[in-house]
Amino acid sequence: MQAQTNRQLILRSRPKGLLAPGDLELVQTPLPTIHDGQALAKAKYLSVDPTMRVWMAVDTYLPACAIGEVMRAIGLAEVVESRHKEFKKGDKVVGLTGLQDYCVIDSADKRGGLRKVPPIPFLSDTAFLGVLGATGLTAYFGMMDIAKPQKGETLVVSAAAGATGSIAGQIGKIHGCRVVGIAGGAEKCKWITEELGFDAAVDYKQPDWKEKLAAATPKGVDIDYENVGGEIMHEVLKRMNLHGRVVLCGLISGYTKEDPALESFATILRKRLRVQGFIILDYADRFMEGATQLGKWKMFGKLKHRETIVEGLEKAPDAINMLFTGANIGKLIVKV
Amino acid sequence: MQAQTNRQLILRSRPKGLLAPGDLELVQTPLPTIHDGQALAKAKYLSVDPTMRVWMAVDTYLPACAIGEVMRAIGLAEVVESRHKEFKKGDKVVGLTGLQDYCVIDSADKRGGLRKVPPIPFLSDTAFLGVLGATGLTAYFGMMDIAKPQKGETLVVSAAAGATGSIAGQIGKIHGCRVVGIAGGAEKCKWITEELGFDAAVDYKQPDWKEKLAAATPKGVDIDYENVGGEIMHEVLKRMNLHGRVVLCGLISGYTKEDPALESFATILRKRLRVQGFIILDYADRFMEGATQLGKWKMFGKLKHRETIVEGLEKAPDAINMLFTGANIGKLIVKV
Repeated sequence: MQAQTNRQLILRSRPKGLLAPGDLELVQTPLPTIHDGQALAKAKYLSVDPTMRVWMAVDTYLPACAIGEVMRAIGLAEVVESRHKEFKKGDKVVGLTGLQDYCVIDSADKRGGLRKVPPIPFLSDTAFLGVLGATGLTAYFGMMDIAKPQKGETLVVSAAAGATGSIAGQIGKIHGCRVVGIAGGAEKCKWITEELGFDAAVDYKQPDWKEKLAAATPKGVDIDYENVGGEIMHEVLKRMNLHGRVVLCGLISGYTKEDPALESFATILRKRLRVQGFIILDYADRFMEGATQLGKWKMFGKLKHRETIVEGLEKAPDAINMLFTGANIGKLIVKV
Repeated sequence: MQAQTNRQLILRSRPKGLLAPGDLELVQTPLPTIHDGQALAKAKYLSVDPTMRVWMAVDTYLPACAIGEVMRAIGLAEVVESRHKEFKKGDKVVGLTGLQDYCVIDSADKRGGLRKVPPIPFLSDTAFLGVLGATGLTAYFGMMDIAKPQKGETLVVSAAAGATGSIAGQIGKIHGCRVVGIAGGAEKCKWITEELGFDAAVDYKQPDWKEKLAAATPKGVDIDYENVGGEIMHEVLKRMNLHGRVVLCGLISGYTKEDPALESFATILRKRLRVQGFIILDYADRFMEGATQLGKWKMFGKLKHRETIVEGLEKAPDAINMLFTGANIGKLIVKV
């Protein structure tokens, strides 16, 4: 009988590209025995998320899933036996169950611990894996804390028909943005516009998708909620307005291939870096403030500077090249 | 006599790579005649900046310099004749003089207008092109407004012996940072450590520079003041601590070549975008807040969601691949 064994998907090898047969092996193991402070829960639903492909491959914000271990996954499970004071039989829990039938809830295990799901009448259990789960929360905090959408702004969401993108775009609509989704195929595009209320959808599988993106963003793009990376991100960046915000949430285009061009963006995402482009002209009305402070530091000997002086206007072209060959130290100046 | 003619460097062609002879042509033109509201100034010093190479090539934060026009440049000039009420003979001015002997100050010209330089005893005229000029101000606002250096943090500055980098690093020292400069060659490295007080210098022309960078940043990197881009930026990014800040100030490694991998970063810089990587785990202690708001929106019909359900634990590997082939709509879930 199935109840007496635990089926588990074990990570056997780190995939190259898409998962190949054998990367995850289905094995049957005896049902775990629980001790005091533990409970046994049976998985009902398991969440399938792009980040799992990252967990299979490399250490990132979490260590990579170890070879020989049950593949890490978020799931919704029901307690079937309990010697844990906080859980009783029938409780529904959500958290890192792993890709297996049964998991053990252990009071000693803080990290990835499973938490009880409240029974909410209008919500299905699966909502706790999606709209109210990790993907919905990702959309929520990415939009509310990082994008901070303002009425009238244009938001572009890539992977817009995905679990996170579909919620991020709707949060944009709630806040009065023009929302444009990028998705692959007519069905997805129809869903996000007709059912979710996105203002426009761009089907990146159509050859003219770049023109469509431009047409759908006549006032440019203020916020890019980025789930894809690569060419799609690059095209959205080109449409960005000055001082726009890019919520770097996912780079799914790069998870199944090695692309050095994506590596810097992967680092920015994984390390949650903030990259801010800037041009001094934006500070023109504060030049006096800056020059005054720099002048004070200079006067008190806290700031040293050095100049490389080239004589003669006619030497200016050579001087420009010196910058790129590393020939100057400090400020490069032509004396006329 | 030289005073009767104006030597000008005219942009004749947009350079490929380094400037070639003929890209800028030296011509002699008659001395400009000034009218009421104008003054004539004679250039004493002209600033040579990496951004000039960008101005020669493409429209960015300023339109590209037009073919046939005097090459755009910042300079320090002295008024030699004035019919302008705000300037008198002998005044020193700084601003967009262009690469030429003489320029006209026009009261109607707001943009790029030249401003008077105050006589400050301890400062040479050239300081207004460097430490107190555009490059010093760039370092000041990039550090103070974007990097916001905190005591004990590690700052890495690339092109550290350049006009901007050398000031940015010293501002880091003033604020109690450990400052590591990346520069090319022993002389530059010696200058920034021995004279400017940087804690360490990494000579990127040495084959082991990556190991040296790692050794110089034992606690990782909190702030990258980035002037170079490309491989140097990539290596610094790898050393960044979680939630670090990257001040994207320049990408000089890419100004003289076409590198698609740099293009997205060039866009971020030119459009002054803010790119923020994020991972939902950072918000773990606010999950309830997020789920409550999402639940409310869901209850009031403002949020729709959709699920793609795959049946059977054994189908999980295929389900993971569905994410990368675009096969699912909305949240992808395995029903066990």
